[in-house]
Amino acid sequence: MASVTIDGETGTTVMHLEAEYAPPRSWRTWLIGRPLPTADAPNQTIGKLIGLAVFASDNLSSTAYATQEILIILAAVGTSAFGYVFPISLAIAALLVIVTFSYEQTIHAYPGGGGAYIVARDNLGELPALMAGGALLTDYVLTVAVSIASGVAQLTSALPVLFPYRVWIAVGLVMFVMLMNLRGVKESGRVFAIPTYFFVVMMLATVSTGLIQYVLGSLGTVIDPPPMEQIHVAQGLSLFLILRAFASGSAAMTGVEAISNGITAFREPRSRNAGITLIWMAAILGTFFLGISFLAGPIGAIPSEAETVISQLARTIFKGRGLLYLGAISATTLILIMAANTSFADFPRLSALIAADGFLPRQFTYRGSRLVYSRGILALALLAAGLIVVFQASVTALIPLYAIGVFLSFTLSQSGMARRWWKIGHMAPGQEVQEHGSTLRWERRWRVKMIINGIGAACTAVVMCIFAITKFRDGAWVVVLLIPALVFIFFRIHSHYKDLAAHLSLENHGGPANVAPRHRVIIPIGGVHQGTLVALRYARALSDDVTAIHVSTDPAEAEKIQDKWDMWGDGVRLVILDSPYRLLAEPLLSYIEKIAAQRQPNELITVVVPQFVPKRWWHNLLHTQAAMMLRLALLTRPGVTVTDVPYHLNGQPGRNGDNRQEKP
Amino acid sequence: MASVTIDGETGTTVMHLEAEYAPPRSWRTWLIGRPLPTADAPNQTIGKLIGLAVFASDNLSSTAYATQEILIILAAVGTSAFGYVFPISLAIAALLVIVTFSYEQTIHAYPGGGGAYIVARDNLGELPALMAGGALLTDYVLTVAVSIASGVAQLTSALPVLFPYRVWIAVGLVMFVMLMNLRGVKESGRVFAIPTYFFVVMMLATVSTGLIQYVLGSLGTVIDPPPMEQIHVAQGLSLFLILRAFASGSAAMTGVEAISNGITAFREPRSRNAGITLIWMAAILGTFFLGISFLAGPIGAIPSEAETVISQLARTIFKGRGLLYLGAISATTLILIMAANTSFADFPRLSALIAADGFLPRQFTYRGSRLVYSRGILALALLAAGLIVVFQASVTALIPLYAIGVFLSFTLSQSGMARRWWKIGHMAPGQEVQEHGSTLRWERRWRVKMIINGIGAACTAVVMCIFAITKFRDGAWVVVLLIPALVFIFFRIHSHYKDLAAHLSLENHGGPANVAPRHRVIIPIGGVHQGTLVALRYARALSDDVTAIHVSTDPAEAEKIQDKWDMWGDGVRLVILDSPYRLLAEPLLSYIEKIAAQRQPNELITVVVPQFVPKRWWHNLLHTQAAMMLRLALLTRPGVTVTDVPYHLNGQPGRNGDNRQEKP
Repeated sequence: MASVTIDGETGTTVMHLEAEYAPPRSWRTWLIGRPLPTADAPNQTIGKLIGLAVFASDNLSSTAYATQEILIILAAVGTSAFGYVFPISLAIAALLVIVTFSYEQTIHAYPGGGGAYIVARDNLGELPALMAGGALLTDYVLTVAVSIASGVAQLTSALPVLFPYRVWIAVGLVMFVMLMNLRGVKESGRVFAIPTYFFVVMMLATVSTGLIQYVLGSLGTVIDPPPMEQIHVAQGLSLFLILRAFASGSAAMTGVEAISNGITAFREPRSRNAGITLIWMAAILGTFFLGISFLAGPIGAIPSEAETVISQLARTIFKGRGLLYLGAISATTLILIMAANTSFADFPRLSALIAADGFLPRQFTYRGSRLVYSRGILALALLAAGLIVVFQASVTALIPLYAIGVFLSFTLSQSGMARRWWKIGHMAPGQEVQEHGSTLRWERRWRVKMIINGIGAACTAVVMCIFAITKFRDGAWVVVLLIPALVFIFFRIHSHYKDLAAHLSLENHGGPANVAPRHRVIIPIGGVHQGTLVALRYARALSDDVTAIHVSTDPAEAEKIQDKWDMWGDGVRLVILDSPYRLLAEPLLSYIEKIAAQRQPNELITVVVPQFVPKRWWHNLLHTQAAMMLRLALLTRPGVTVTDVPYHLNGQPGRNGDNRQEKP
Repeated sequence: MASVTIDGETGTTVMHLEAEYAPPRSWRTWLIGRPLPTADAPNQTIGKLIGLAVFASDNLSSTAYATQEILIILAAVGTSAFGYVFPISLAIAALLVIVTFSYEQTIHAYPGGGGAYIVARDNLGELPALMAGGALLTDYVLTVAVSIASGVAQLTSALPVLFPYRVWIAVGLVMFVMLMNLRGVKESGRVFAIPTYFFVVMMLATVSTGLIQYVLGSLGTVIDPPPMEQIHVAQGLSLFLILRAFASGSAAMTGVEAISNGITAFREPRSRNAGITLIWMAAILGTFFLGISFLAGPIGAIPSEAETVISQLARTIFKGRGLLYLGAISATTLILIMAANTSFADFPRLSALIAADGFLPRQFTYRGSRLVYSRGILALALLAAGLIVVFQASVTALIPLYAIGVFLSFTLSQSGMARRWWKIGHMAPGQEVQEHGSTLRWERRWRVKMIINGIGAACTAVVMCIFAITKFRDGAWVVVLLIPALVFIFFRIHSHYKDLAAHLSLENHGGPANVAPRHRVIIPIGGVHQGTLVALRYARALSDDVTAIHVSTDPAEAEKIQDKWDMWGDGVRLVILDSPYRLLAEPLLSYIEKIAAQRQPNELITVVVPQFVPKRWWHNLLHTQAAMMLRLALLTRPGVTVTDVPYHLNGQPGRNGDNRQEKP
């Protein structure tokens, strides 16, 4: 598709070429697969069954730890308080119903994808959008850390011998999920169906067997339970403690928003398919969560870092560590690791979106060789691995940081939706308005819908506050400070890009670039040798106004250079700068500064520095790197350009590529 | 002293200027003092009294640990073996006499300074010289580590509360001595007199009081001795063990060579003054060492990491921790720290000497702002501090590495001298020959002198072998491997410099630089904005043959750029490279490579890259640093020069310094 266009007016020639560059096979190819051309960007869509598998893993996996986290809080009172687990779980399930209906409406309103950032940006403005963005990014990182840590906890429940290595297993799993995502495994979502449905089947089997045993009276209690760890000071039962337990358990709701972010992945009718999938997902989540919370009581499950409640439940119901037990545990482990995967799909997309708006480094918008936002994937993996190491892969230590961000984004997203219904309600009946790429269409039932979203916003706001207050001292303060800090950083980045754009703008710019009338070239020399002559030849090609400068710390040496220059300098002016303090860079810089300060408008100054390129990297240690130091020093000096002229030390002496002489 | 010369034949103008650069006051001034001009290089000389103070601290300080190190070895047999301390010490003292006379001859033969490196280089050749150089450099590093560690051990004997902080105190002291040497305290050697003579007086008082008490029978035994640490497995007394103890104790002889290195510092008659100072020094050393070793027996001193033998001796003789005890301990601590200072004087000088011969990086030959070889000082401090941290400031752990290098350099230096006498003996009577800057003058008594040096060489060679064998497994193997490794590195560095000189040589070079007939300029652009236009203006000043290249990952973007280029590109040819794999650098590089491969002899290719210079350093994180990546990639490609044209983002939008337009 090579083409040549010549502009009629200005006569500018434009050649359009296909790059001849074919990506070579390398270790990267081996690790993440061969590069994909942009034209391959897939536009497959998925149905409800696959959609559930792709988007539900984060959400459903919460059932693996939500009940346990409620128990841990109640343990401060003693096992007598464990009876509150089920009522608290019922409250959480009610909240789930509200949020689900609220999000179902978002899905229909934003068929192009309605994450909290977009909904808040379109309806509430920049600041709420960035708060939602910061909260979500924080939470995606925490989701990876929490679900991988929890997956490893399942694993070490089944294989206690691995417990001492849990941090490294967790970090290794983060790296594995990262690699899979750099490959773009997300795009081939079908592989996700197997573990998700495996988990659904195994959980269904566990919970239903347990309930049947309960009804028949054959449900036993946990044999040889792990010792109960009491993380909090023993205390009486209080409303505060109940709210704390409620806040811990509400981690179960994380991941409800995943489908609304990824609507575009669904087959048409998109919104309908996505909405139905969301309701299925919530129903499955609610059933499992309530089932586990209900059964935890009768079997006498004990919250412990050493064995998860799921593990205790499965081995009580399946009477020991048999095949069914191992199936349940491995399904739980798998889905927890896949939950991390959901974050790996969402974090890079969201950061690319925020970066495209100019609030994060532009680099996040580049798609890597496999068409995924590689930098976002790397950033997420590094942050999550860091958290896992700092918190020693402890789910209980990570949970207080978690969920606050999710609920903030829930609140902002629902508020945005409520605001949107209010705008729709104030339109003329039958009117249709395009706003920020989504369509506002008048609807008769806007009041009901506004109320649903409003209740959703209010409930999640209340949960967020409960969470922030009851968990403040356990670590929630970190997030409470972090989100405003992130928003501040977003604005600083934005102001830099705005500033840059203003500087670079060609509006009110004089006209095309003029050719400079004068070009002064300065060539610092340490000695007169072949490298110097290569640089001199280059300098003379740039301009007739060339000055060589030698900074002298030794008069005898300076005299030698002067003699050699007479012979080889080709008549170019030489300045010898005596440096009484034996400094090399500073006198040269001050000389150049002086010249630069006197320069005419439109005059160019170039410093040409001979630079050795040695055969081996360690040879660089044997040279003073004067060129690099000069560049760094002169970079801040407007109007001066530094050019290294490389002199290659390969090949035979005296036969350097740059040194070829014309035939006489 | 500005001057202008114009060469009659070639017409080359040479301007000679004094640099107007005055070093600013900064934190460095505060830390190490204001820069000294080269003209201030001092040529003061010192007499015997000051000379002894400057050069003896390393040597005399060995008395602080030599006896203890013998005891530690004998402790493997039990206290019964401690009777061997004095006989072993006598053997070491005899060795000291031999080496002293041997070095006294060196001082007369090399009045310009006769370190082992120079003597070996002039008389034995390059390889032995480099072995001596490597051995000495290793030993200087160890001297700093051992004497500072031993000084801190004295300190913690007196103040046991400081024992847990010994590593950091030691590292802090190394840094302090480093700073003093960066200031150039060595040049004002007078300050050294006080602590050296303080030590001599205190040691004399301690040893003589002890001997008098012994004669009068009033010498007590150590009250409340520290627990004996047995580092080695208990064993019977054997010749091997005696030799081991002898080797440990011979650490006392380190520092004997210091005077022969620094002869030039002495007042005339140099060699005579230096020779007498050497004999004084050896006499004082011998007296103290024998005195301490003799007294250690009757008082029942116990070798221990927790309290030094010197401390035990002083508190037994002075009956408790009184003023005299504290005086003796603080004098010992001071001299040990000053012993490190001797290395700081010698290491940088020796490394500068070896670097000037092209066996170490040239940077070691540069003198810093205070006229000292700053890089050598820094290198020594870092290496010694590293050793102290690795060995946890334990003298006993460091000793097995120590002294092997000293004895190797003794051996090589004495062998060199013996060889020199042999050469002199084979000259015609009365003849005088200049060789390597030293004068060979016929002498009647050459045979006697050759025998003295020969015995010195043989004895030190034997001690070196004893040391290497008996201490091999304790750590001496490190040094046995390290010295050949260093020699190998010296040769590799040398071959690089020789190679470089051959490449750069102007012998057989065609003639003065020719002006290139063609200069192709390539300017990669990511967009069309003010930064691009600044770079374009620069590119057009270089050549008429300018091509702009845009690597396109987005056809819509490419079209926009094409439109803008029609307007602002000033008719310059634009190539749009479609990059199907979204890579930016690689297609550009392969395009440039292709052009470079086809270039004519003498044709120049320059890549002009617009480079933002943001207001704050962290803004760099928000840009892709394409310029830097291109430079790194193209550095290895002969014939291509990369120039960044800086575009400064200071000041007001649209008013960049580089952007000033000519008046129409």
